[in-house]
Amino acid sequence: MSIKNFKKKLFPFAVVSAIAFTSVAGAVPNAEANGNEQTNGKVKNVIFLIGDGMGVSYTTAYRSMKDDPATKLIEETAFDPHLVGQQMTHPEDPDQNITDSASSATAMAAGIKTYNNAIAVDNDESEVETVLEAAKEKGKATGLVATSEITHATPASFGAHDISRKNMNAIADDYYDELINGEHKVDVLLGGGTSLFDRTDRDLTEEFQNDGYGYVTNKQELLENEDAQVLGLFAPAGMPKMIDREDSAPSLEEMTKSAIDRLKQDKDGFFLMVEGSQVDWAGHDNDIVGAMSEMEDFEKAYAAAIEFAKKDKHTLVIATADHSTGGFSIGADGIYNWFGEPIAAAKRTPDFMASKIAEGAEVEEILSQYIDLELTDKEISAVKVAAETENYGSIDNAIEEIFNKRSYTGWTTGGHTGEDVPVYAYGPSSEKFAGNLDNTDHAKIIFDLLKAKVEINDK
Amino acid sequence: MSIKNFKKKLFPFAVVSAIAFTSVAGAVPNAEANGNEQTNGKVKNVIFLIGDGMGVSYTTAYRSMKDDPATKLIEETAFDPHLVGQQMTHPEDPDQNITDSASSATAMAAGIKTYNNAIAVDNDESEVETVLEAAKEKGKATGLVATSEITHATPASFGAHDISRKNMNAIADDYYDELINGEHKVDVLLGGGTSLFDRTDRDLTEEFQNDGYGYVTNKQELLENEDAQVLGLFAPAGMPKMIDREDSAPSLEEMTKSAIDRLKQDKDGFFLMVEGSQVDWAGHDNDIVGAMSEMEDFEKAYAAAIEFAKKDKHTLVIATADHSTGGFSIGADGIYNWFGEPIAAAKRTPDFMASKIAEGAEVEEILSQYIDLELTDKEISAVKVAAETENYGSIDNAIEEIFNKRSYTGWTTGGHTGEDVPVYAYGPSSEKFAGNLDNTDHAKIIFDLLKAKVEINDK
Repeated sequence: MSIKNFKKKLFPFAVVSAIAFTSVAGAVPNAEANGNEQTNGKVKNVIFLIGDGMGVSYTTAYRSMKDDPATKLIEETAFDPHLVGQQMTHPEDPDQNITDSASSATAMAAGIKTYNNAIAVDNDESEVETVLEAAKEKGKATGLVATSEITHATPASFGAHDISRKNMNAIADDYYDELINGEHKVDVLLGGGTSLFDRTDRDLTEEFQNDGYGYVTNKQELLENEDAQVLGLFAPAGMPKMIDREDSAPSLEEMTKSAIDRLKQDKDGFFLMVEGSQVDWAGHDNDIVGAMSEMEDFEKAYAAAIEFAKKDKHTLVIATADHSTGGFSIGADGIYNWFGEPIAAAKRTPDFMASKIAEGAEVEEILSQYIDLELTDKEISAVKVAAETENYGSIDNAIEEIFNKRSYTGWTTGGHTGEDVPVYAYGPSSEKFAGNLDNTDHAKIIFDLLKAKVEINDK
Repeated sequence: MSIKNFKKKLFPFAVVSAIAFTSVAGAVPNAEANGNEQTNGKVKNVIFLIGDGMGVSYTTAYRSMKDDPATKLIEETAFDPHLVGQQMTHPEDPDQNITDSASSATAMAAGIKTYNNAIAVDNDESEVETVLEAAKEKGKATGLVATSEITHATPASFGAHDISRKNMNAIADDYYDELINGEHKVDVLLGGGTSLFDRTDRDLTEEFQNDGYGYVTNKQELLENEDAQVLGLFAPAGMPKMIDREDSAPSLEEMTKSAIDRLKQDKDGFFLMVEGSQVDWAGHDNDIVGAMSEMEDFEKAYAAAIEFAKKDKHTLVIATADHSTGGFSIGADGIYNWFGEPIAAAKRTPDFMASKIAEGAEVEEILSQYIDLELTDKEISAVKVAAETENYGSIDNAIEEIFNKRSYTGWTTGGHTGEDVPVYAYGPSSEKFAGNLDNTDHAKIIFDLLKAKVEINDK
């Protein structure tokens, strides 16, 4: 869709000031922990991090995984000191009341409830302005970073508009075609999805480069490139999960740092959205190994954002989830234990191992190479039986089952679940995110901080 | 156990000031929503409410149940405006890392991590002082209210000491025998459990009455009784769930109001613990009807506490859970919906209906009498098949399955789960409960507010 079709959705100040839940004008978190020596400081930069699918079971389980058993108290994660509340995630969809990632990202990006699959469009399919676009309107630098295709639902809802998340070619086109004040609206695009940009009908990698963007396809190139504007595509579709990643692929932390290093050059400040995309994918797969791998990738990106914000003092950092996934429970089948050790014994995801076996590798060889556990005959035999079907999914499930059973991890669904998710915030104005938020509140607060509404009204 | 065995566990001020997580010195919630016109006011009264098993899926699902579909925005629950963060619930047990209600209640009551089953005793089985006892030491009135036996794990951990939660007779004895400054330490005891007090070996109902306590056994008597000290036992063991309750039984709200009305007479203030005991029991049973019934009972008690606190202005109200239960997920089996309507169509719990059928009542008659839904032949037939087994549990499960399937409710366990749980706080010093708490922090903060440590140290 073209930017000229843009139907503005206005957020008058009264809406921001009097939304349904009182919590927006909420808590003033611990001055030291939440960087509120800067509470009354101006917000120059916003880094918005989304752990896709990262419900409270994920954040709690990850803390448990990281715990040093030699110490009496459990160690906090990078997120813990900045917990300010929770948010509600329900969509406004005629057929579904549990959100997908498109509807929830549109809520957080544009401040409106919409239908599942919607990419920054309202229920009437009209386009709605996003906080990334408002930031660009204000002359700020902007960036999107993800480990999925960079055209996937979450980043797309900040930087594109489409009636369906499935139209990833059109979303890639939007990143190039939709101009704000004559300029591309996203300065830094880092993630997977080469196949969506370099296509038979169009080569957006060329088009971006012709307009002065750097183009990088591996970690080395990313680290060496010094362009202020850059397109980085590190896999044909989604990137491998952290635990499966080759050295040539950047981590989410490296992409986040690289994005910040470029964006911070803009004297007007920046808006950056970073997604830990595949916590959710692992949840859909009921894969606890992949889920914990992706939590680590996301936590390190969050820590990098916080590190920058602590030095900068004018950067607001928010981290949250769009929904939870899989009905993941810490504990299952009546057992009052959840064990991280068997999960930590995996050197690759079950997906990775299953693909090797499906390609013909010997079951016991793969399992002993990639799982640092003494497996039982029953466990090995279950994978062998699955391997005989030559069905990749069955092999994957059989390997996942080893970790789910040994860790006492429960799952109820291959889809999403509807419980409220945690909200973390640090830096100036972080107190505005405290309490019980609606997912639309994030955009409303950020629009307000950007003072973008006034300009939108004037146009 | 006798009070003379009391081994003091001291909480020097440094511990309170420098506990592992920064959040204790946490957020200052919205002045209006959290009653912080009183933030610097003195805390005279503390009402501590525990929704047993009330994890974030329960609080979210209950909000969804209550939603008025005629309005655009979802209605908030009584809890929502006061959300200040979450707490970690893990015990310190050599064999289990998911808590039970005894260990977690001991953490919240006494500020120490201990083993599962421990009733206000440490890992070495030594007794630890509770905030209720500290309040009584300070001359405050005290109360325990629950819908379980009043000797059950949660209330017991505030008012008794035992190496095992199973010793409910001994716990009842503690309530009478353990004196503080020559007086009974709990002034108001309201809940279930007649059989634990009126026994062949001892009749504690008589002993309490001989010492001036009122004794009441139904709602009418409770409302008419005007004694400052009262023992109210409304069922032989646990009370019926709200939805199954006869008019003669008080609600948790009525018990809470009755307790407050008595305790507020004490010029030195009061400490009251209120437990919504059976959210957890329904979760163990994977019974979504019972769970939502008990959420409503608990929410109304919470609202009554808030109503009192708003008028009083010197009352701190905290509500939280001790853990979550059942691996309850909002959504299951790949479906992006969760429906409250089938749950609201139940007029009694599956337990209630199953007991009628197990006693010989006709399946279709009971189902049509107590479920306001057009059931399918398959649903009715499943209950009939279960009824033929004459096994109460099988009948119960078959009826529960109707509601779980129709609502898309998922469960992974008949036990507890380990995820962090929400924390709500209102009134003076409510800001101290913001952020990411450990369950022990509640007691540490309340001890500090009571300034009880100085006196303990002096003894």
